Amino acid sequence: DIVALVDHGRTGVLAGKTVVITAGPTREPIDPVRYISNHSSGKMGYALASEAQKAGARVILVSGPVALSAPNGVEVRPVLTAEDMLQEASNAVDEGCDLFIATAAVADYRPETCAGDKIKKSSDAMALSLVRNPDTLATIAGRDDAPFSVGFAAETTDVASYATDKMQRKKLNMIVANDVSTPGLGFNSDNNAVSVFWPGGQTSIGPDSKTNIARQLVAMIGEHLGQAAR
Amino acid sequence: DIVALVDHGRTGVLAGKTVVITAGPTREPIDPVRYISNHSSGKMGYALASEAQKAGARVILVSGPVALSAPNGVEVRPVLTAEDMLQEASNAVDEGCDLFIATAAVADYRPETCAGDKIKKSSDAMALSLVRNPDTLATIAGRDDAPFSVGFAAETTDVASYATDKMQRKKLNMIVANDVSTPGLGFNSDNNAVSVFWPGGQTSIGPDSKTNIARQLVAMIGEHLGQAAR
Repeated sequence: DIVALVDHGRTGVLAGKTVVITAGPTREPIDPVRYISNHSSGKMGYALASEAQKAGARVILVSGPVALSAPNGVEVRPVLTAEDMLQEASNAVDEGCDLFIATAAVADYRPETCAGDKIKKSSDAMALSLVRNPDTLATIAGRDDAPFSVGFAAETTDVASYATDKMQRKKLNMIVANDVSTPGLGFNSDNNAVSVFWPGGQTSIGPDSKTNIARQLVAMIGEHLGQAAR
Repeated sequence: DIVALVDHGRTGVLAGKTVVITAGPTREPIDPVRYISNHSSGKMGYALASEAQKAGARVILVSGPVALSAPNGVEVRPVLTAEDMLQEASNAVDEGCDLFIATAAVADYRPETCAGDKIKKSSDAMALSLVRNPDTLATIAGRDDAPFSVGFAAETTDVASYATDKMQRKKLNMIVANDVSTPGLGFNSDNNAVSVFWPGGQTSIGPDSKTNIARQLVAMIGEHLGQAAR
């Protein structure tokens, strides 16, 4: 049919590419009722998924719990914890992936144990033992068969130096940094302003809507991906 | 105008009463990005607010962060933390309140300190020090001028004994208990089944939609409130 024909002959900067994107927060259970999470709305990741799809890519969106609908033509694979996120993202990359974009705000730590029943209030204070979660982005960008890997950095201080350090440490091809402490931008907002770093260069985008920033990022990533020799 | 006239002459089991309802989870910040929360959707509290309003009451809904719209004719006062919740609920009760219904899943503990900047990943494990939060329901139900106070209990084991113990300990007039471990009911679901306890009696409602359960609860609370001598 017409739609399928059009779809097969897609054009755009990411035509013929498979893109795996992570988005949203993770939730790390303390017990059946309580959890640790963070303020990620998933909006940036969902906007990038939508724009990557429009740019011709097949898009798989590995998403933590958010209040957003699946973008048109994008396959959403829901996850809850950081361990789920690594597993699903790795599975998706195993299936063949040209570009990996990690926008998810994965919890760095999880409670060491998840209580089977709701924990009772028994004392005035308690210590919650936390252990490090696996690092989805570093794991995938560090693979021998790593796709072109783009990370995000949400920082409140020294944004540029933390972002470029993270890019080098995690072997990323590109990192997008935003200062989440700026009022009205970033987490839970519809607007954002970002700085983009790659080995040997940098640029800034915005302030603008997350949709417009996503469109410009997809164009920029597509250009770098085309130049990449790896 | 007509609407105002009708409104002033409202009938229903809660006509002329002021009702303060708490709903949703609280969020206890770990740092500017991370927080501890719980799986409360706020649906039960919002349904009760809507039904209490339809039953003739003036309704103030003190609500944690949820993805729900304000019910028609209900004043929503948004809060984030357990400390905010106690402050706003106390303020609302101070203004004059006949009936207090606490459906909120207030976090029992909060991080002892909230870091001003995002905490860096520095070690494989860490201990998060938690301290007890104030108890909004016990504080309001324990006031000398306490309104008729209804609590909710979300338990995974020994539901009836925990609920009646909580009712006595917190000096409640009524407690509504649901077993959050039942699949498809309770947290985040549109359906629920509850057991209601008061000094000297008990009954069960549901399984049914949260709207229908809220309607029956409002009728039952209105009857007990009418009989109460306090």
